[in-house]
Amino acid sequence: MALIVQKYGGTSVGSVERIHRVADRVAEARRQGHDLVVVLSAMRGETDRLLQLAHEVTPAPDDRELDMLLSTGERVTIALLAMDLRGRGINARSFTGRQVGIITDSSHTKARIARVTAERIREALAEGVIPIVAGFQGINERSDVTTLGRGGSDLTAVALAAALKADECVIFTDVDGVYTADPNIVPTARRLEKVSYEEMLELASLGTKVLQSRSVEFAARFGVPLVVKSSFKEGQGTRVTTEDSDMERMTVSGVTGDQNQAKITIVGVPDRPGIAARIFGPVAEANIVVDMIIQNVSQASLTDISFTVPRVDLGKTVPLVQQVAKEIDAKSVEVREEIAKVSIVGVGMRSHSGVAARMFEALSREGINIMMISTSEIKISCIVDKKYLELAMRTLHAAFGLDETPS
Amino acid sequence: MALIVQKYGGTSVGSVERIHRVADRVAEARRQGHDLVVVLSAMRGETDRLLQLAHEVTPAPDDRELDMLLSTGERVTIALLAMDLRGRGINARSFTGRQVGIITDSSHTKARIARVTAERIREALAEGVIPIVAGFQGINERSDVTTLGRGGSDLTAVALAAALKADECVIFTDVDGVYTADPNIVPTARRLEKVSYEEMLELASLGTKVLQSRSVEFAARFGVPLVVKSSFKEGQGTRVTTEDSDMERMTVSGVTGDQNQAKITIVGVPDRPGIAARIFGPVAEANIVVDMIIQNVSQASLTDISFTVPRVDLGKTVPLVQQVAKEIDAKSVEVREEIAKVSIVGVGMRSHSGVAARMFEALSREGINIMMISTSEIKISCIVDKKYLELAMRTLHAAFGLDETPS
Repeated sequence: MALIVQKYGGTSVGSVERIHRVADRVAEARRQGHDLVVVLSAMRGETDRLLQLAHEVTPAPDDRELDMLLSTGERVTIALLAMDLRGRGINARSFTGRQVGIITDSSHTKARIARVTAERIREALAEGVIPIVAGFQGINERSDVTTLGRGGSDLTAVALAAALKADECVIFTDVDGVYTADPNIVPTARRLEKVSYEEMLELASLGTKVLQSRSVEFAARFGVPLVVKSSFKEGQGTRVTTEDSDMERMTVSGVTGDQNQAKITIVGVPDRPGIAARIFGPVAEANIVVDMIIQNVSQASLTDISFTVPRVDLGKTVPLVQQVAKEIDAKSVEVREEIAKVSIVGVGMRSHSGVAARMFEALSREGINIMMISTSEIKISCIVDKKYLELAMRTLHAAFGLDETPS
Repeated sequence: MALIVQKYGGTSVGSVERIHRVADRVAEARRQGHDLVVVLSAMRGETDRLLQLAHEVTPAPDDRELDMLLSTGERVTIALLAMDLRGRGINARSFTGRQVGIITDSSHTKARIARVTAERIREALAEGVIPIVAGFQGINERSDVTTLGRGGSDLTAVALAAALKADECVIFTDVDGVYTADPNIVPTARRLEKVSYEEMLELASLGTKVLQSRSVEFAARFGVPLVVKSSFKEGQGTRVTTEDSDMERMTVSGVTGDQNQAKITIVGVPDRPGIAARIFGPVAEANIVVDMIIQNVSQASLTDISFTVPRVDLGKTVPLVQQVAKEIDAKSVEVREEIAKVSIVGVGMRSHSGVAARMFEALSREGINIMMISTSEIKISCIVDKKYLELAMRTLHAAFGLDETPS
């Protein structure tokens, strides 16, 4: 008999019919003899409906009041699921974030979990009751309602699994696992049986939407075994866990693409100390996240500096950079929007040499020019012309043997 | 400068536009220099929407879970109003029933208030903040959410006014006060300037829907001055307060009609001790409220017993009564649905004699036969043929001088 935390997202509880199906799953896990804790999101669309109401009332709604408003969505789903289960003779009880002791800081709408007491959950489990817990929400030290931001319900599930030392935390969502690449772009993409926390973190930060980085970080820190599964079809899903020797046999676990970047180049920058700080200081102050930076070799004391920013921040970034370029006597500022980032991720890179060379070679064979490169211990990213992104992804997927089922 | 508790019902906060108008009213009261506490209901229709969801999930939803579900409606409106006010630069803050310390028993869906701590409200008022409080809800000693049943938001407002020793508790609703009769039936009906708690209680229990009996009882017990006003038009409304000499000058304050009763007669009952208990015991056990009872003068040791029950309970009541009738050898059971109850209410009855006689005479002049009579210190009710109800009400309204403006 294991203790399992199950989390169901907004699509999985989006209608009365779907809530019945969640109840079926919960009933089945209980029949198998497991102890269960269930964490739910709000019904799909509900959070947007409430946000729209708020913005109809006032253009810039207060954050504390937004949390009071948005935290109602999960209360509705937990009450409905608990009713459903009780109606079937299964002893379930709904609990809010407050009631299970999710204590956060006071950063309303994006609060961080400070600690989890989980007393009422332990009590409920001891009495044979299945606790149905509202995800996404907690309270601060003043007992005001807070919410945890995007992906907050996953975080609630992982945090409870850590506090309860659960055997497993299963995230039920609308995809059946983590894939070697987006199947819409790479038709040969395969579901991964297992992926390490580190790889999952890189994949999440590169745009794979299955899990939010924060939940993965939390799971890694407390060693919570995570499983991502579909709530609509049967299957093993993907296990996110600590690195093991199986994983190292594969060089690369996944290929990702990101089209939401833009590249800015400052041409003819005087090459002297402190110039980088002059350029990137104002950008950082404006809360714009710079991803990659490269600086050309200096020629006649002049250099070019290129960097990428999220495309949505381009409008804010360019005037700042033009101002600095003027102050430091640079020649010009050039912007290129038609770029994309293609990345390969894998813990196997640590033990396999020549991975980067193989990547560059594969891209070059297809005539794809590489504009920028950045590497970390388990990831290599290249900026390429946007029109080549899909080709680059398929090429790399094949080049690293991801098309075949691993032996 | 006074401390005023304002309560707005579901119609008053039924849309974003109406929430703006409530914010206007709150802002105006604040400009006049008053300290304010605002209590809100859920948006009109929201409670029904949630109830319907619950009944789609399971035929007999669990009461604790219903409370978790239904308590979300007020959280939405308090957050929206607080946002609206803050957006105008007015320092308002939303609070749930729990946060303001509405502690109840554990009778989910119809909890009774045990005590009110109101600490956070006092804190907020001391800081110049306007507390916007969720009506209808509290928590029990286990910190589970409870709801107060029909009219629960009025009760929250009155209970807070009592705890804070407020100068006034204003109930904003969709009518502009308490009337001498339903204006839809009696076109000459007038708004009452003042009415006593006792009269209001009788009027409420006779079907006047402006205030629930429980809130009036609570207000009377703690001497909370209540005002009923329209949230849609200006006006003085009706003040519900302790009896004074003004009120005694009027014999009758109001005329009400109730069409939701049915009459059952057991014919030929053996007239011996214990028979009434045999009849009404099973009815009471089935939670059916018997309103009026009359017993005819006994003839040859046989009597007839008539009583009224709510029409909706007729189906449950008749088989019970037929069973008893058989056991006690009564002759037959007769049911009459086409009846109605007309009542006059007034504290002036205490000091004016001959009120009942005047009532009977007025009805008889119009050829209206009286089937049953019941009286209390400040009320007289008659059961008449249903088709005469409107005529009876207009006749009594005129007979007791309610058509004219009181001098």
